[in-house]
Amino acid sequence: MMLAKVVGHVVATQKCDELRGSNLLLISKLDDDLQPIKDHTWAAIDNVGAGMHDIVLVEEYLALNKDRYKAMSVIAIVEQVFRDR
Amino acid sequence: MMLAKVVGHVVATQKCDELRGSNLLLISKLDDDLQPIKDHTWAAIDNVGAGMHDIVLVEEYLALNKDRYKAMSVIAIVEQVFRDR
Amino acid sequence: MMLAKVVGHVVATQKCDELRGSNLLLISKLDDDLQPIKDHTWAAIDNVGAGMHDIVLVEEYLALNKDRYKAMSVIAIVEQVFRDR
Amino acid sequence: MMLAKVVGHVVATQKCDELRGSNLLLISKLDDDLQPIKDHTWAAIDNVGAGMHDIVLVEEYLALNKDRYKAMSVIAIVEQVFRDR
Amino acid sequence: MMLAKVVGHVVATQKCDELRGSNLLLISKLDDDLQPIKDHTWAAIDNVGAGMHDIVLVEEYLALNKDRYKAMSVIAIVEQVFRDR
Repeated sequence: MMLAKVVGHVVATQKCDELRGSNLLLISKLDDDLQPIKDHTWAAIDNVGAGMHDIVLVEEYLALNKDRYKAMSVIAIVEQVFRDR
Repeated sequence: MMLAKVVGHVVATQKCDELRGSNLLLISKLDDDLQPIKDHTWAAIDNVGAGMHDIVLVEEYLALNKDRYKAMSVIAIVEQVFRDR
Repeated sequence: MMLAKVVGHVVATQKCDELRGSNLLLISKLDDDLQPIKDHTWAAIDNVGAGMHDIVLVEEYLALNKDRYKAMSVIAIVEQVFRDR
Repeated sequence: MMLAKVVGHVVATQKCDELRGSNLLLISKLDDDLQPIKDHTWAAIDNVGAGMHDIVLVEEYLALNKDRYKAMSVIAIVEQVFRDR
Repeated sequence: MMLAKVVGHVVATQKCDELRGSNLLLISKLDDDLQPIKDHTWAAIDNVGAGMHDIVLVEEYLALNKDRYKAMSVIAIVEQVFRDR
């Protein structure tokens, strides 16, 4: 799962059915100092009520619990990262 | 989901059945200033009626609603990107 | 789907059952000037009768129509690429 | 499967159901000298009881044996790596 | 499918059930001169009886023919690579 930070959000009115009702966050992958990596940004469906600047885990996940469709999603809010150097 | 821009389209007569009837767009991944990244270009099936220069979300999606086949597809047209720096 | 060029082929006698009878092409990803990118080369199953130097679309696809196995495959031959700069 | 080293762990209270009860490790991809590559770090579900500094194999795996959901997971602890140069 | 070379193997006693009985090879992706690319090395399940220094094709494949689990696997031994420059 990608360790990422919520850096914004995206507004999209015209979209496929599986995305309707979803909150679309903008997330940036974090480097080993937990800073966003430039130009490593994606849109992800929020599944956990994540807020701006939260550190999150991002992975493919079932959109709206529909079995046949998966999309990049925020699946956990990270409280602490323990890293040995 | 990849944040990308529609930069062109592709014509392909000879193709697998799952692609028949699909509109094939050329999309380039965007950097954090929403500019296309050089040489980060793919072809994607249009699912939402996207037009030239639209900012879009791109993800694997079921081609022509066939359960057994997924391909890179445009699944949303982005109206606004809010990003905190 | 990756925009690629057929640059050769591969001979493999010893292979898993799902690949038997398949034509294995060597394909290189194209840059924005439609030139092959060095060291971005893969092997792909031919599904559309592609020939040497053809520009093609490459994506995961069902090998030999077996539901349980997917592999990188050539799924379309590209006749024209329209790109706005 | 990615050859990686366990370099820490992640605490996440708010998460999707499929992750509940999982131990979330921080893993870094290894280079050819078996040293962690900077900024190539992900979170992965522990399936084998891996400990800090273990060399492990990481791959998509079924979270909590649920058929419908896969996430990046530690699936083996590596005891020895034999490499010919 | 990735064109790769077998450069070693991995010993792992503690592993998930799907990997039991599998031979775990160390493979490095090849560049366009068929030389291993530094730090582009993975572990892969052997499905075809590949040996040290063999050039092989690597792709996600069903581990031990179990429908629900796929892992990076060696699925063909390459005898010849024909490449036009």
